[in-house]
Amino acid sequence: MFSKMATTVHTPFVLLLFQIGVFSLPVSQTPQESPTCGYKSCHAIKPGMLNVHLVPHTHDDVGWLKTVDQYFYGARNDIQHAGVQYILDSVVDQLLKNPDRRFIYVETAFFYRWWKRQSGDMQDTVKQLVDEGRLEFVNGGWCMSDEATTHYSAVVDQMTIGLRFLNDTFGPCGRPRVAWHIDPFGHAREHASVFAQMGYDGFFFGRLDYQDRSRRKASREQEMVWRASESLVPPVADLFTGILPNGYNPPEGFCWDQLCDDPPIRDDPDLEDYNVEDVVSKFLTVAQEQAKVYKTNHIIMTMGSDFQYENANLWYKNLDKLIRYVNQKQVNGSNIHVLYSTPSCYLQELHRANLSCPYFPMRIDDFFPYADAAHDFWTGYFTSRPALKRYERISNSYLQICNQMEVLGGPTSRNGSFGVGNSDTMKKAMAVAQHHDAVSGTEKQHVADDYARRLANGWTQCQVLVSNTLAALSGSSAPRVYCEHLNISVCPLTESSSKFSVNVYNPLARPVGWSVRLPVNGTAYAVTDSSGNAVVPVSQATVVVRRDRGYAVNELLFQVRAPPMGYSTYSVSLLQKGPPPASPFPRAPKDIQNKFLKVTFDPETGLLSSLSNLETQQTVRLSQNFYWYNASDGNNKDSKQMSGAYIFRPNSSTTFIISKTAKIETVQNSVVQEVRQWFSPWVSQVVRLYADSRVLELEWTVGPVPIGDNMGKEVITRFDTSINSSGIFYTDSNGREVLQRRKDYRPTWTLTQTEPVAGNYYPINSRAYIKDEKDQLTVVTDRSQGGGSIQDGSLEIMLHRRLLHDDVRGVGEPLNEASDLYPEGLVVRGRLLLSLNPPAVAANTHRPLAQEVVLQPLITFTEGLLPPNTRPEFSGLQTALPPAVHLLTVSQWDPDLVLLRLEHQYEARDSKEHSQPVTVNLQVSPLPSTFILLTGLSPSYRCAVCLSGEKPLPKTKGDPSVWEVTLKPMEIRTFLLRVRLR
Amino acid sequence: MFSKMATTVHTPFVLLLFQIGVFSLPVSQTPQESPTCGYKSCHAIKPGMLNVHLVPHTHDDVGWLKTVDQYFYGARNDIQHAGVQYILDSVVDQLLKNPDRRFIYVETAFFYRWWKRQSGDMQDTVKQLVDEGRLEFVNGGWCMSDEATTHYSAVVDQMTIGLRFLNDTFGPCGRPRVAWHIDPFGHAREHASVFAQMGYDGFFFGRLDYQDRSRRKASREQEMVWRASESLVPPVADLFTGILPNGYNPPEGFCWDQLCDDPPIRDDPDLEDYNVEDVVSKFLTVAQEQAKVYKTNHIIMTMGSDFQYENANLWYKNLDKLIRYVNQKQVNGSNIHVLYSTPSCYLQELHRANLSCPYFPMRIDDFFPYADAAHDFWTGYFTSRPALKRYERISNSYLQICNQMEVLGGPTSRNGSFGVGNSDTMKKAMAVAQHHDAVSGTEKQHVADDYARRLANGWTQCQVLVSNTLAALSGSSAPRVYCEHLNISVCPLTESSSKFSVNVYNPLARPVGWSVRLPVNGTAYAVTDSSGNAVVPVSQATVVVRRDRGYAVNELLFQVRAPPMGYSTYSVSLLQKGPPPASPFPRAPKDIQNKFLKVTFDPETGLLSSLSNLETQQTVRLSQNFYWYNASDGNNKDSKQMSGAYIFRPNSSTTFIISKTAKIETVQNSVVQEVRQWFSPWVSQVVRLYADSRVLELEWTVGPVPIGDNMGKEVITRFDTSINSSGIFYTDSNGREVLQRRKDYRPTWTLTQTEPVAGNYYPINSRAYIKDEKDQLTVVTDRSQGGGSIQDGSLEIMLHRRLLHDDVRGVGEPLNEASDLYPEGLVVRGRLLLSLNPPAVAANTHRPLAQEVVLQPLITFTEGLLPPNTRPEFSGLQTALPPAVHLLTVSQWDPDLVLLRLEHQYEARDSKEHSQPVTVNLQVSPLPSTFILLTGLSPSYRCAVCLSGEKPLPKTKGDPSVWEVTLKPMEIRTFLLRVRLR
Repeated sequence: MFSKMATTVHTPFVLLLFQIGVFSLPVSQTPQESPTCGYKSCHAIKPGMLNVHLVPHTHDDVGWLKTVDQYFYGARNDIQHAGVQYILDSVVDQLLKNPDRRFIYVETAFFYRWWKRQSGDMQDTVKQLVDEGRLEFVNGGWCMSDEATTHYSAVVDQMTIGLRFLNDTFGPCGRPRVAWHIDPFGHAREHASVFAQMGYDGFFFGRLDYQDRSRRKASREQEMVWRASESLVPPVADLFTGILPNGYNPPEGFCWDQLCDDPPIRDDPDLEDYNVEDVVSKFLTVAQEQAKVYKTNHIIMTMGSDFQYENANLWYKNLDKLIRYVNQKQVNGSNIHVLYSTPSCYLQELHRANLSCPYFPMRIDDFFPYADAAHDFWTGYFTSRPALKRYERISNSYLQICNQMEVLGGPTSRNGSFGVGNSDTMKKAMAVAQHHDAVSGTEKQHVADDYARRLANGWTQCQVLVSNTLAALSGSSAPRVYCEHLNISVCPLTESSSKFSVNVYNPLARPVGWSVRLPVNGTAYAVTDSSGNAVVPVSQATVVVRRDRGYAVNELLFQVRAPPMGYSTYSVSLLQKGPPPASPFPRAPKDIQNKFLKVTFDPETGLLSSLSNLETQQTVRLSQNFYWYNASDGNNKDSKQMSGAYIFRPNSSTTFIISKTAKIETVQNSVVQEVRQWFSPWVSQVVRLYADSRVLELEWTVGPVPIGDNMGKEVITRFDTSINSSGIFYTDSNGREVLQRRKDYRPTWTLTQTEPVAGNYYPINSRAYIKDEKDQLTVVTDRSQGGGSIQDGSLEIMLHRRLLHDDVRGVGEPLNEASDLYPEGLVVRGRLLLSLNPPAVAANTHRPLAQEVVLQPLITFTEGLLPPNTRPEFSGLQTALPPAVHLLTVSQWDPDLVLLRLEHQYEARDSKEHSQPVTVNLQVSPLPSTFILLTGLSPSYRCAVCLSGEKPLPKTKGDPSVWEVTLKPMEIRTFLLRVRLR
Repeated sequence: MFSKMATTVHTPFVLLLFQIGVFSLPVSQTPQESPTCGYKSCHAIKPGMLNVHLVPHTHDDVGWLKTVDQYFYGARNDIQHAGVQYILDSVVDQLLKNPDRRFIYVETAFFYRWWKRQSGDMQDTVKQLVDEGRLEFVNGGWCMSDEATTHYSAVVDQMTIGLRFLNDTFGPCGRPRVAWHIDPFGHAREHASVFAQMGYDGFFFGRLDYQDRSRRKASREQEMVWRASESLVPPVADLFTGILPNGYNPPEGFCWDQLCDDPPIRDDPDLEDYNVEDVVSKFLTVAQEQAKVYKTNHIIMTMGSDFQYENANLWYKNLDKLIRYVNQKQVNGSNIHVLYSTPSCYLQELHRANLSCPYFPMRIDDFFPYADAAHDFWTGYFTSRPALKRYERISNSYLQICNQMEVLGGPTSRNGSFGVGNSDTMKKAMAVAQHHDAVSGTEKQHVADDYARRLANGWTQCQVLVSNTLAALSGSSAPRVYCEHLNISVCPLTESSSKFSVNVYNPLARPVGWSVRLPVNGTAYAVTDSSGNAVVPVSQATVVVRRDRGYAVNELLFQVRAPPMGYSTYSVSLLQKGPPPASPFPRAPKDIQNKFLKVTFDPETGLLSSLSNLETQQTVRLSQNFYWYNASDGNNKDSKQMSGAYIFRPNSSTTFIISKTAKIETVQNSVVQEVRQWFSPWVSQVVRLYADSRVLELEWTVGPVPIGDNMGKEVITRFDTSINSSGIFYTDSNGREVLQRRKDYRPTWTLTQTEPVAGNYYPINSRAYIKDEKDQLTVVTDRSQGGGSIQDGSLEIMLHRRLLHDDVRGVGEPLNEASDLYPEGLVVRGRLLLSLNPPAVAANTHRPLAQEVVLQPLITFTEGLLPPNTRPEFSGLQTALPPAVHLLTVSQWDPDLVLLRLEHQYEARDSKEHSQPVTVNLQVSPLPSTFILLTGLSPSYRCAVCLSGEKPLPKTKGDPSVWEVTLKPMEIRTFLLRVRLR
């Protein structure tokens, strides 16, 4: 197919290649339910009584102490007893024994592994259980994602592959109606927003701040409506949200799993310790106590926990007895009715209670930070494993490129001149990496290694696919070289070659300029662009590399541009081998500046002293340095809590400075000005201003963090400014909307602050800022990190953590990253991008900037000159999308359909210029719908309590306006496009 | 029924009351098997290959760390994860999933608990599995009995109720063909003899001395024929015996239970860690290695262990895969064939190998003591928990009496004037007490308490039954009082009453005389016998009680006699309240003597100095004292092994003397002569010679053993004599045949002795002796104890142990008995009975003596004078049985049948006088058969390898000789008698 296409030179838009067909959902995605599943399959309740909904469930981490496959098979039970294959075997067996029994299953990554090994008979049996509502899926994503450190685009992707599998396999009865995040350590508003937009009827979770819970129990506010967006028009992002009574565990004394020790129900009067009366009476008490902290005459009990139900008989045998004996008490006047149930059946009863929305309180903020005791703030994992967090983030970029390439390349992409490749490996690797013990950094070291290996395997598959597509699009099958270690100045090809070409692929829907920095050993190179024009300034711009891993002595630096969803090709030729250029200037300049920004340094210390935006004529005082907190080792009078993978607990609020002064080198040329700062053997930074940039780049390198003094260290960088921030700063939620954070304050309850630093830390997924009326200093990060504003005008970001103790939350290892590759301890490098703007227009910079950091160009190399018939430039889009529109997803859905997601990337309050509805015509530039359409889920039951009614599917008749899609701020619309070659 | 019978006065033999009917087995006991079970249901093997028999099994202790009911229900999983109800649930489920799968079940105490809670459908399902040989019972007793500390009569009883349940429930397919003692800590020859006589085809066990195992592996002698009796005519007591390859565990790396951590078979190539090749190759290696230490081309692997298969899916899923993948290798030339099997299927293949008997070696000694390492001799438990061991032994006596009373009383016994009683409670309590962590003393304290409570409950039920029967037999319903604490001089009735009657019931089949010793507060009493004659000498014989628990100041002592299987009644009247008799004489006599024995004391020390038999004119030097070994606390250069519940490991061979001299009091009167010796506050003894006795009684009291010095103590008494024992002594096996023991020697291999004391200890169940050509000193014990002969002429018996450390064999508690009742530590009292005879006639004394100690008369009391029409004396037998015949069992089998067991109680070499065949006519005195008849099991397959052929069932035609039963030495014959009232 693509051998033909490759001859169709210069068709810059995918829609030129394909024709959009009539859009219709596959049959199995028809949004009707069979009459026996879902809400219709719930057991009868007793209206006059307190109804106790027992929800048998298992919580199966997609990796934590063991890898996902170890968990699936039940390998390495010496680490933790857990085998998901057996859980599913056992639950199905037990469900068959009694039609009253119910079970919910959550993590599709596991269910998928199990399903594909089952016989046809077993698959039919399971389908019947699902059709009858006896086995119900909840949440249904590939994993239960982390909420603090994930990026929304990866979350949407992982939910998609999970929900799609359920839909393809089970049809409407496989549709999860309830989002179920029972374990994540705090809850992001953006997650709730995404769930609401995906059509979930409700959301349940288990963990929230202990003070918040205490207040909510007293005021019976554990069930609420979460208005999860300040931009989307209600009730689009309204979601019923319930807090489960015991985290996600059963009430104390009623855990009948093989992993528990609670007494079974012993109902044989001939044997010792007959305990039916005891158990029933204890249960009635527990139910009555629980009913006091909820509003309706329905309560839910989660009967299960981590990796439980491996031997489901233990649970069900005792639950059967419990139900029988508790309900028997009704003849003696008990008014408690207990039943097998599911979260959706419970939700339905809350809905049927016909309570008006105001009956439940409204929540508009989020659930960060999470503390389970006064000195136990789970704010360390915002930063834990910074290298893994970065690898996950760049892998997301790789995956989006891989997806786009699969569409652009068609079948050839998967089986082409470079062999067989795929995007599925990377999709699944990224999906498991979203798990709340994956990108969160809270897994054991060997499991973190496994996630990284999966991502690497995914990228290996994608590289073949990308090579195939680039070969097809460019017409050149020259071997394509991927240099994945450019960040540490390693690329054997560029280091040794005298002629090579550089292909820059841009996954964004608008043209992007970029600086390419290549390790080389020559001192002068000629660079030409796709049109054969010399790139200027460039050839002079080799700069001495810093101490790094490769063999290069210089770096070649030049500006590139690539078209929307397309590539440009640059040719590089060695001009001069000669000696390296003169050494960098060994002192700090007074300042560096380009036409947009000016940065000053304190000549005494070598530190930053101010930042000016030359366009807006604004200047702030800005000093920056690196510090560490001494991680608590548990020897503390207030609490024995130690800092660990989850928990950030500095021994005191004192920040220890690494060095008051920096040793300096300066490099200045026509492309870039760099001030290189050395603070210690393990902390350095490059302050970098590119000629054409409105952004100041701070490239930090931290590590190996020394621990010879037996002190765990949590390393931060802190910006101290003249901005009058009044105790307030701002952080994004999963890379989308921004929430205001106020020091020592929570919007929905009166906080008693017990940890002045850790209790003021929040997750920063993509950006944070401080501002006053005049100035907004925005920091865009290249990965998720934790940060806070502990003093007015100050913003600190935690970069790296090296700890000596476990924090007693189960992972059982200190977060002390070292390995064969880095025996002295992990060295991490990253970038912070600073912009200074008036607040009203700041988003105009940080919104596109953050997307550029998330979706980076892919640089590939071929040795030698480009062959004559090579197509040096290509774009998949006819035109760039409008600035407000982000091309979130372009991905092959099946042989006939392409999945497209478009997003309005501005919040309603962001920008006068961009926070407006914007219309895109799919026949000119890519195309819309909702998540519901994607997964075949009906958009009904948006809020089970406050029904919003059905949303019409898009019209499909001949009217050309059907191709016009209007996006309002923060709206995401999804389409499946049927395409064929023109 | 019995209201009539009670009027039939003085019919002294049960056969006068009942008529013996034609004996026939119930239908379900017909000794044919259905064509689908048993040996016929075995999977095909591959003759040219090495066949690996995988035997899925669980080992379920009938109490150990938890009580039997806690184990059944899975309660107290905090102590140990184990729930047998779930094991059986799960195994049945999994067997149904694949007809190839097999499982064996062993402990009927658990199976019975489970079975009675199952629905009819489930029972039918299980019956089908049993009929098809997919579920097979092995061993099948109520428990898997201990072999070192049990008495054969209780073992026979516990096997009987287990096998009977299986036979009643499943018929012939429920018949166990294999005895299976995989865990007991050493193996008694008498157990093998009993198994052979019960018709088992083979016997498998797991534990034997590590030196013995090592030698047997090298010489491929792990399978053998055990000739288990020196008296029974071969092959009656020949039993094929196999030593399992890994104790009873799976080979290392192949344990797939939820309690194990071995890697599951990961056969999905899409997931990480695919390991099929690794597992198969490791398994092939293991199988080949194992085949090197066995003789045939069949090997067995026990795939299971303690309380495994609670989630049988884990095991079977992986075993299915193992079998598939290993056998797949055959197409590539592998010659290993693996199959699901059972011990009987394995045994059948050994038999089919058609190997002549000499192919397997013969063993005639036993497997004691058991050591699993050089300093780890499991010889402590021979004595551990001496009070529990005694309570179990006396409970056996209670149970035999209860059984006899149930037959003698008929239905009235179970529901009579004293209410509802039964013998079942005691039968089951005694049956669980035989378990190898029950009477062995190797359970946790709370479990020991539970066994004792069960026995007490059993006796409470029996007391009602006994009272009902005695009321019916005697014609008096006067309230009957049981004084269970006579051993510590407590009996409120005798202490306070001025007129009472004493009923003495004798469970033996010959008349027995006995001394009754009652705590009283008067100084003179008149005692009359059943005929109203005064008992003389008696009334003078009140003696001052020792410091004990009750309120009595004196003890009333008189001789009684009771007829065979019957009672006599004595009346006691207070003559004189007056002051107590004069204090005992405070010094040692030079000697005490009666017409049979003379005992001398050393006047310097107060210790025994000699013993003479006046009839045979023989005298030996005999000194005796008390000592303790310092239990190792693990601080020892040779080994860290500590003394504990299982293991006896003295820190050195040094015995620490408690006192070189004894403080003495002497009491002498016409009934008894007592020398009371005080060695320390915690060790004392009464040397006692009754007027009419050929036995010297040593009543020892030890405890609380002091541990204030932080030294664990193992208290012994030692007899040092002039007998020239030449390093040899003798101990009985389970109370039956006697085995010779030689110091630092094992009959079947060259011993390297590593523990000079513990390695020379053996279990003494009822007696031990040393002898030379002239003199035999026999000690009969009142419970199981450990002992040895460390020096020539010396015999030591361990009486009590108090230890401060656990011995790391799982029980997890030091053996340090103390409780609310005895907070200072347990005090134990017991009796050793000494006789001195020429060796050739010694058995004539110790055989009947030991049975008298096992089956004690039951003494009951009624207040006041006997009512006029009371029958004061009764015998259930027409005549006493011949001296060589022991009435082992008389028990109600069902409403129509009575179970009778007769035993020749002499060994072939015991006695010229008694070691002869003896014939009993059942119409004159009770009656014969084999265990096989009892349980309906066919006597075929006595030795699966060396078939002995069928034994004819007894003839049932009119020939009166059918009622003649001849017993050869050590033979036990069993009959079910159909009886009815004449």
